[in-house]
Amino acid sequence: MSKRIAGPEIERMIQLLAKLPGLGPRSARRAALHLIRKKEQLLAPLAAAFAEAAEKVRVCSICGNVDTSDPCLVCTDPRRDASMIIVVEDVADLWALERAGAMNARFHVLGGTLSPLDGIGPDDLNVKQLVDRMAAGGVKEIVLAVNATVEGQTTAHYLTDQLSGFEVRITRLAHGVPVGGELDYLDEGTLAAALKSRTVF
Amino acid sequence: MSKRIAGPEIERMIQLLAKLPGLGPRSARRAALHLIRKKEQLLAPLAAAFAEAAEKVRVCSICGNVDTSDPCLVCTDPRRDASMIIVVEDVADLWALERAGAMNARFHVLGGTLSPLDGIGPDDLNVKQLVDRMAAGGVKEIVLAVNATVEGQTTAHYLTDQLSGFEVRITRLAHGVPVGGELDYLDEGTLAAALKSRTVF
Repeated sequence: MSKRIAGPEIERMIQLLAKLPGLGPRSARRAALHLIRKKEQLLAPLAAAFAEAAEKVRVCSICGNVDTSDPCLVCTDPRRDASMIIVVEDVADLWALERAGAMNARFHVLGGTLSPLDGIGPDDLNVKQLVDRMAAGGVKEIVLAVNATVEGQTTAHYLTDQLSGFEVRITRLAHGVPVGGELDYLDEGTLAAALKSRTVF
Repeated sequence: MSKRIAGPEIERMIQLLAKLPGLGPRSARRAALHLIRKKEQLLAPLAAAFAEAAEKVRVCSICGNVDTSDPCLVCTDPRRDASMIIVVEDVADLWALERAGAMNARFHVLGGTLSPLDGIGPDDLNVKQLVDRMAAGGVKEIVLAVNATVEGQTTAHYLTDQLSGFEVRITRLAHGVPVGGELDYLDEGTLAAALKSRTVF
């Protein structure tokens, strides 16, 4: 704002809100006003929730997930199949796969992908912890649920190498037509993969 | 989430974030993860900023603006022309007009528009405070910067009635072609108004 029209506390709130993904300066102002209007129902509870999260959130020492306990809820859940570990790049991927709810397995969050150009090598990812979990025994299958990008695939190949000494089934996610997707809008690579992996109807 | 994959603190944060305008459940999760990743730079400062705002924000008793002081910064700014009051529906409109930076005047926030169907009458708006400000003297012009909607115009007419006892110039915002706008995309009402109010080139 060119001229000060509100106290520094409100402007600071707007500045910080604008750093959230999906909020620009304009929507940050709208969000700030909304919060101010709903002071009791929203602003104060969010302040408390943020403070509590800032104090309690930590990274799980086993799988790299974030949670308010260490080990995290996923690692300590006795109903999950401990013999299967789904390897993901990021906590967001873990949440996405959990929402799909298709597998009742454990997870391992790498914290990124190998990217020599960005200076990210194996030591920057949670690779050692994964090898340690394998060495501890009991794991029968590793699902490499990395992104279908060059970096993701490079990382998948590296992990396969690292895990070659263990007797474990290493799988990856299927390629194919997204459910609800239209063929006309799909790229050639996906269509070729979907044809190649066709199944009996 | 179908299954608990994170502590209640994180899920509560997501639930509250999803109540912000512009954030749905999906973007609220993304925002929460972003905040968790930037715990020191963003999550903790936002918690503090929200707490401070929740404690300090109040409605200005003169003009109805929100600020951390009462009277607000706009009302107490000695460089503003106290003889002109711009009447707006909402604090968001005040902020928008201030960003335009075209006028160095005071403001008055109505807090809504007359809307009999929604049960919003004159007593629900800051009309009395406006009349009181007029009665205190010194105001030469009232700019009715209400929205160009039916409710906005109804409210403008009502205010004109209420202020008829005072010797004051009552003006409204100009109608016309938005700067940068293309005629082809404008409605007939706007084009007719722009033609009627044409100025010498």
